[in-house]
Amino acid sequence: MRTDGRNPDQMREVKISRNIQQYAAGSVLIEFGNSKVICAASIDNKVPPFLRYSKSGWLTAEYSLLPGATPERTIRDSSRGRISGRSHEIQRLIGRSLRSVINLKALGERTIWIDCDVLQADGGTRTAAITGAWLAMFEACLNLDRNEHGFAVKDYLAAISVGLVDDQVLLDLDYAEDSRASVDLNLVLTGSSKIVEIQGTAEGEPYDFKMLDRLLALAKTGIDYLITLQQDFAGDYFKKQIKSVGLG
Amino acid sequence: MRTDGRNPDQMREVKISRNIQQYAAGSVLIEFGNSKVICAASIDNKVPPFLRYSKSGWLTAEYSLLPGATPERTIRDSSRGRISGRSHEIQRLIGRSLRSVINLKALGERTIWIDCDVLQADGGTRTAAITGAWLAMFEACLNLDRNEHGFAVKDYLAAISVGLVDDQVLLDLDYAEDSRASVDLNLVLTGSSKIVEIQGTAEGEPYDFKMLDRLLALAKTGIDYLITLQQDFAGDYFKKQIKSVGLG
Amino acid sequence: MRTDGRNPDQMREVKISRNIQQYAAGSVLIEFGNSKVICAASIDNKVPPFLRYSKSGWLTAEYSLLPGATPERTIRDSSRGRISGRSHEIQRLIGRSLRSVINLKALGERTIWIDCDVLQADGGTRTAAITGAWLAMFEACLNLDRNEHGFAVKDYLAAISVGLVDDQVLLDLDYAEDSRASVDLNLVLTGSSKIVEIQGTAEGEPYDFKMLDRLLALAKTGIDYLITLQQDFAGDYFKKQIKSVGLG
Amino acid sequence: MRTDGRNPDQMREVKISRNIQQYAAGSVLIEFGNSKVICAASIDNKVPPFLRYSKSGWLTAEYSLLPGATPERTIRDSSRGRISGRSHEIQRLIGRSLRSVINLKALGERTIWIDCDVLQADGGTRTAAITGAWLAMFEACLNLDRNEHGFAVKDYLAAISVGLVDDQVLLDLDYAEDSRASVDLNLVLTGSSKIVEIQGTAEGEPYDFKMLDRLLALAKTGIDYLITLQQDFAGDYFKKQIKSVGLG
Amino acid sequence: MRTDGRNPDQMREVKISRNIQQYAAGSVLIEFGNSKVICAASIDNKVPPFLRYSKSGWLTAEYSLLPGATPERTIRDSSRGRISGRSHEIQRLIGRSLRSVINLKALGERTIWIDCDVLQADGGTRTAAITGAWLAMFEACLNLDRNEHGFAVKDYLAAISVGLVDDQVLLDLDYAEDSRASVDLNLVLTGSSKIVEIQGTAEGEPYDFKMLDRLLALAKTGIDYLITLQQDFAGDYFKKQIKSVGLG
Amino acid sequence: MRTDGRNPDQMREVKISRNIQQYAAGSVLIEFGNSKVICAASIDNKVPPFLRYSKSGWLTAEYSLLPGATPERTIRDSSRGRISGRSHEIQRLIGRSLRSVINLKALGERTIWIDCDVLQADGGTRTAAITGAWLAMFEACLNLDRNEHGFAVKDYLAAISVGLVDDQVLLDLDYAEDSRASVDLNLVLTGSSKIVEIQGTAEGEPYDFKMLDRLLALAKTGIDYLITLQQDFAGDYFKKQIKSVGLG
Repeated sequence: MRTDGRNPDQMREVKISRNIQQYAAGSVLIEFGNSKVICAASIDNKVPPFLRYSKSGWLTAEYSLLPGATPERTIRDSSRGRISGRSHEIQRLIGRSLRSVINLKALGERTIWIDCDVLQADGGTRTAAITGAWLAMFEACLNLDRNEHGFAVKDYLAAISVGLVDDQVLLDLDYAEDSRASVDLNLVLTGSSKIVEIQGTAEGEPYDFKMLDRLLALAKTGIDYLITLQQDFAGDYFKKQIKSVGLG
Repeated sequence: MRTDGRNPDQMREVKISRNIQQYAAGSVLIEFGNSKVICAASIDNKVPPFLRYSKSGWLTAEYSLLPGATPERTIRDSSRGRISGRSHEIQRLIGRSLRSVINLKALGERTIWIDCDVLQADGGTRTAAITGAWLAMFEACLNLDRNEHGFAVKDYLAAISVGLVDDQVLLDLDYAEDSRASVDLNLVLTGSSKIVEIQGTAEGEPYDFKMLDRLLALAKTGIDYLITLQQDFAGDYFKKQIKSVGLG
Repeated sequence: MRTDGRNPDQMREVKISRNIQQYAAGSVLIEFGNSKVICAASIDNKVPPFLRYSKSGWLTAEYSLLPGATPERTIRDSSRGRISGRSHEIQRLIGRSLRSVINLKALGERTIWIDCDVLQADGGTRTAAITGAWLAMFEACLNLDRNEHGFAVKDYLAAISVGLVDDQVLLDLDYAEDSRASVDLNLVLTGSSKIVEIQGTAEGEPYDFKMLDRLLALAKTGIDYLITLQQDFAGDYFKKQIKSVGLG
Repeated sequence: MRTDGRNPDQMREVKISRNIQQYAAGSVLIEFGNSKVICAASIDNKVPPFLRYSKSGWLTAEYSLLPGATPERTIRDSSRGRISGRSHEIQRLIGRSLRSVINLKALGERTIWIDCDVLQADGGTRTAAITGAWLAMFEACLNLDRNEHGFAVKDYLAAISVGLVDDQVLLDLDYAEDSRASVDLNLVLTGSSKIVEIQGTAEGEPYDFKMLDRLLALAKTGIDYLITLQQDFAGDYFKKQIKSVGLG
Repeated sequence: MRTDGRNPDQMREVKISRNIQQYAAGSVLIEFGNSKVICAASIDNKVPPFLRYSKSGWLTAEYSLLPGATPERTIRDSSRGRISGRSHEIQRLIGRSLRSVINLKALGERTIWIDCDVLQADGGTRTAAITGAWLAMFEACLNLDRNEHGFAVKDYLAAISVGLVDDQVLLDLDYAEDSRASVDLNLVLTGSSKIVEIQGTAEGEPYDFKMLDRLLALAKTGIDYLITLQQDFAGDYFKKQIKSVGLG
Repeated sequence: MRTDGRNPDQMREVKISRNIQQYAAGSVLIEFGNSKVICAASIDNKVPPFLRYSKSGWLTAEYSLLPGATPERTIRDSSRGRISGRSHEIQRLIGRSLRSVINLKALGERTIWIDCDVLQADGGTRTAAITGAWLAMFEACLNLDRNEHGFAVKDYLAAISVGLVDDQVLLDLDYAEDSRASVDLNLVLTGSSKIVEIQGTAEGEPYDFKMLDRLLALAKTGIDYLITLQQDFAGDYFKKQIKSVGLG
């Protein structure tokens, strides 16, 4: 039995609030239970130097915790004068994942900035961030001019964590579970169940290949559910565009 | 006539949402129209070196814009490797203002960290931040052990901006008005209408002392209203404590 | 009775030494009693990116304490790797104040850099810095080519501090007085007694509006005197230019 | 056919040079073909603050490229004033992986610093770094005093990359292959073939679960070979210690 | 003939103004012609970690240019976020030189901070800084309690530059000469003409050992003169102390 | 008798390994006994801003210790966020020295980056770095297109340290000797025995001019030997080019 009464294969409640920052090109507040992440997408009409004159766009992500997101206050990266190693690792993961489902040519010479700021942290913030960032990116892309490469978003994208806690395989770990997990695995899949990223770490005892299979199968069920939420989100507002790119 | 139809002496709608970050000791989301600020108070059981063994506590504040808060994305201080001059100035103002209504001895050797993170910026974020930070601080103090110095909060505290725009004296400027203002003044008052901070800047033409009096009188009306909101906030939940410190 | 025998409404002796840095476009050493500030103005034939192609100039200021300026050595900003919050706040105040009395169009696409370095600190260094920086700026502007917008300096500018110490309203606080002041107010006025900046802080007890009026009235007398010194400074050397811009 | 004539399931030649830095507690130069990494282990008789008085040790890793390691010179992290995101990610991976096969209690209150400096970069430097770092760590641990927790190293540890290039599954990618790979996966296993870390990224097209199985199977063959090299390394010099900890 | 009419073996006029910063333990303004350096010595009742419990003191130096010291404004180290290589090199030279004539044991567990801030730069600022810093240090040491190791200053110390310009050997180069010099040599000697530092650089053509001898002989004459000034400085005020340490 | 049995005027064994980093334009590993330095030269087809459109090239150097180079691990400059003063001083010396024997015009608008990374530190690393950096630079220049200014390298260049240890004048100090030396002098000479840099420091007692002559004479013998090694290095591979520039 899990702390909050969930079954091992049960996710926390997921909530999506649209338009949380009305001046951003796209934004949502996404909640996985008590983990809450503000995801925004901004459009910048420039590209990094290595893409200048390439007729291709770029997407980059930043991730940070608000100081009040955790029981013990988190020191700001700006006060320490540098971005923490953990933040670096997570924001690179977010950026890489989203780039796998976007057609950079279709952006033209623009950069999409993804900002994921954790309002409240209770485990799984990186997977909530990826799932929510897709929504913000989708919304931002709807307002872009289309060029010959069409609509920029190519597929849905969502992420979930699974772990081994006290010899039980659990879906969508909260902070207390994550702290006790001997294995912690994050999976990022597309709407067509293809793997974009897999990151599995033995925090305690190393584990065998059979356990890996069990973890992956469970993670897939969670992501399947998140994709249906993304379809609903996209469906309500953007039916026409989605059809034209062959999603949903 | 103002852009959003307000009278010159009319504030924007003010909304206060409690408990926006449940792991912080105190937190609110405060909205002045389209300006929205997340205010959190965290308790740290340490004091800065200059107060060690003093039996006195401390309060310090940090202020930052989320990147998606503005139409053109705001670069993070952490990416630039340093806090901007504007943020520095505002967070020092917030900290100084709150320290004027708190009894540091009553905190014991603890530090209250105030974090004001702007979710959406449409002018007046520093005054919303001060007003909201008081609420977060109040809530955080309720849970502290009392020592012989009693309850730490000594008085209400709120702030508002006024300005001279096209020869009209306006209350609670939004971003568009602020950009055109020739005079911009921020006033911070206690619940007993005492001055804690006054900061008035001639962005365009310098102004005379008579104009200063008009600006201050208008600002006072706005703050009087904000204090009633603070009384309601404190009143619903904390009636007993308030009486014991003689507020309200 | 004040420590150094002054009356409450009496300023410290003010001294101005011209041309303290002969390679700068303009420079003075200004002394308010034991507070001594080196003020320099340099001309840079560039403007910041946001003004490029605008045909307008810019003015920006930096403020710093020399390590030996204080009884306990002040650590350099460069050793700490960042500018202190206090320095940031003061240099923004200096820059904003001077920009209110300069015609940026008349500068052409040039930047005036104002550097205020405190040689010796005994309270009031920011007001001495503003008053001295005007002198350095004035001198630097005399050597600029005139365009159709004429001479760049539009008016005199001086600043002074006042405070409430032991229930007495005092003019031009020294460090010992400033440390004990319950209210500390800095006022910046033009030669025509218009307000450019007002910054008043309750370090101890908040104060009422009547007290504000008393503080402002006293500050005005101090600034009136400083403006006469600026008129003498400008008058000796630059009579013709001053007349042509209608000062004095 | 691969550029250098290897079969798809063939590794590059692996060379290990002992004692490359005689003042370090342990050090090797490890070569995977043209990729060459200097791996050093240093012992520090302190632990980070969060472990003080815990009777437990710590292990942390740093990774960097020498500027001359790449055809286009790599800018030093120290010149940019901060560690790159890529270096952060890799050094966290190295540290996490090694900590999974070391008994921190057996270290006592000491920190092992692992430094991996890439002398020459031709793909796969992070896997070479992990494999070589184990060797340096092993050597450093031999000279530590044993406490009741015995010898600190618990198992062998090696890493390899696999990828999908032009629809072919390849082992141990060099730089040219890595640049064209649509899938890039790094696997870290113990001597008993347990998973410590799996990181698989779709650089191009996302891939399915069947492909994941093929990639993992191939990676395992590479790691099996690397473990035999580690057994040889440990065997020549340290037979007695190894037996006592039950390796090999 | 030199620009300012000096003979090749003639120094610029040297001026020393005492007590330029009255809150510092010792301070002078030293001028070598148009080069002007503010030198201050501060006493800190702490030592760096590597000297704790050693019963020995320390001396360290910092060197910086005020922005207005040069015709083209010098950017502050603090704005660039780091100390320039040139400043680093010079301040290490100043610190090393002064430590050679001070008895660190006699300081007790205290640190002397030397700050050399260039008010006006016209070549030779590092040699003026060393010569002036000795004066500030001397003054600061007079007020220290004596322990069994006696007065801390062991000998005089002065520095001068010489150079080869257009095939002429010149003493005390100004900026224009320094820019054209093919050889630039700085020499630091004690009051007994012993070498503390020699730094000679071929900016243009490398030079032979015979030329080195000529440069050194000329430099010695300049330093001999500077030492007489230090004797005068010390003599007026500190006759008794000097005798007791056997100087002069 | 010296620790390692050398005579006072005897150098440590010098070894040169070519092509240590095959992707760099030139590289060697140079060993002075147990001091080992990786020296690389990279070509960048850009020049710093101050040389743009000058038709002249540039050469700059960076120096760093690998963390495992010393018995007590050296903290990386990148972890401290800034380059140490010692590294700054040494890399400026390396750059200045090499620039004295290269024809910058002959480089065209290119920058040569010299990187000296100390693999193992046992004293004299800066002199080994200069001597090895010349070899890397020479190799890099061989592959450059020649313009009307011909081959860029003008002369050989080598460096050695000498010191006074226990009243004995010693050549090529190792770390233990260097720590006890009362005088430490580094000399950089060209192939024609001209002085490029001399840096002599009294770490203990200041020394007289006669001692300087003895130190210089001994240093010259060491450098003469190093130049013959450079001639061998250049001779094997580059005979024709050398003749054409009149070396050897």
